[in-house]
Amino acid sequence: MKNIITISREFGSGGRELAKRLAEYLGYHYYDKNILDIVAEKWDIDPEYYEHVVEKSTFPYPIGKSFAAYSSYHKIKTDSLLKQRNVLMEIAKKGNCVIVGRGADLVLKTFNPVRIFVYANMENKLARCKGRQAEGESLSDSELLRLIKQTDKDRARLYLFLGGDKWGRKENYDICINTSKGEIKDMVAPLGEMIKKL
Amino acid sequence: MKNIITISREFGSGGRELAKRLAEYLGYHYYDKNILDIVAEKWDIDPEYYEHVVEKSTFPYPIGKSFAAYSSYHKIKTDSLLKQRNVLMEIAKKGNCVIVGRGADLVLKTFNPVRIFVYANMENKLARCKGRQAEGESLSDSELLRLIKQTDKDRARLYLFLGGDKWGRKENYDICINTSKGEIKDMVAPLGEMIKKL
Repeated sequence: MKNIITISREFGSGGRELAKRLAEYLGYHYYDKNILDIVAEKWDIDPEYYEHVVEKSTFPYPIGKSFAAYSSYHKIKTDSLLKQRNVLMEIAKKGNCVIVGRGADLVLKTFNPVRIFVYANMENKLARCKGRQAEGESLSDSELLRLIKQTDKDRARLYLFLGGDKWGRKENYDICINTSKGEIKDMVAPLGEMIKKL
Repeated sequence: MKNIITISREFGSGGRELAKRLAEYLGYHYYDKNILDIVAEKWDIDPEYYEHVVEKSTFPYPIGKSFAAYSSYHKIKTDSLLKQRNVLMEIAKKGNCVIVGRGADLVLKTFNPVRIFVYANMENKLARCKGRQAEGESLSDSELLRLIKQTDKDRARLYLFLGGDKWGRKENYDICINTSKGEIKDMVAPLGEMIKKL
């Protein structure tokens, strides 16, 4: 038993908050985007470039539309994800961790992690995103809606790229939580207790 | 706050056991198929006939394939479901209840129930069904598989009939639980605590 919890989440659903609080509650290590920094530092890659290659469905620099260009892009993306996998494996071997995103539920399948999916109604996701905008930032509802949809589309594509089927399909998870009704902070303790039983 | 919990479940997932234990844990009334008996008694209908009309996608007696026959079947089914709705509303008004199936999550929407969906891997559902066969009953794996699929198909159709969209779509529920990994009895207390927070 390695006590590995993976949290997949819709953008704006509060999955990251839930994961962070859950790690605190259980006394586990917490990982999210900081995994990208670990990779970038380990292999001396520009973190921003690396994040784009791993997370976005488009390549950061124009590389043309030829087969050779696509093949080169594919190679770079695969190589980048292998580096991420390498770090995920190191983290998993230590155990006692909560990992947000990174396709960790797929990559760490052999570790039999507890796989959580966090989602919410669009109305709630919009409200959460609005409340979290940095000072000076003021995206309109339709811009936020586009951002939410595009981010989840990228996540779904990455899931396919990693060999998964349909991202967010409940059959691929152990518990799916809709955060629309309650307060995330109140869900943490019972969720933590349920995880201990799996 | 009426404290109404609806449990939708895949056949063989252990949803009924979970619901029963949950009702005990919370000290709530428990309802499942017994709702059909309440209806049958209230309107003096043959319970077996009533169950078939409400639950199955085919009509119990041959009624031909004409439009008139279909229309008559549709009327009987709608009327039967309205009777069930009537009983469900009475139960909901009293509150503090756990209701398994009956499309209660849809019918009682205005009561804002906590909606749970219970599911499991096919392997686990088969094993559970096998372990629960009555003495003398011995369906083969393929017969059980057919039964599981057909029952869930009927449930999905009923869900559509009641005005729902895709049965089992996680967006229609507050918590979805995969019972494949743990013991149902261990999931009850944390689930009950989580429900109290919603």
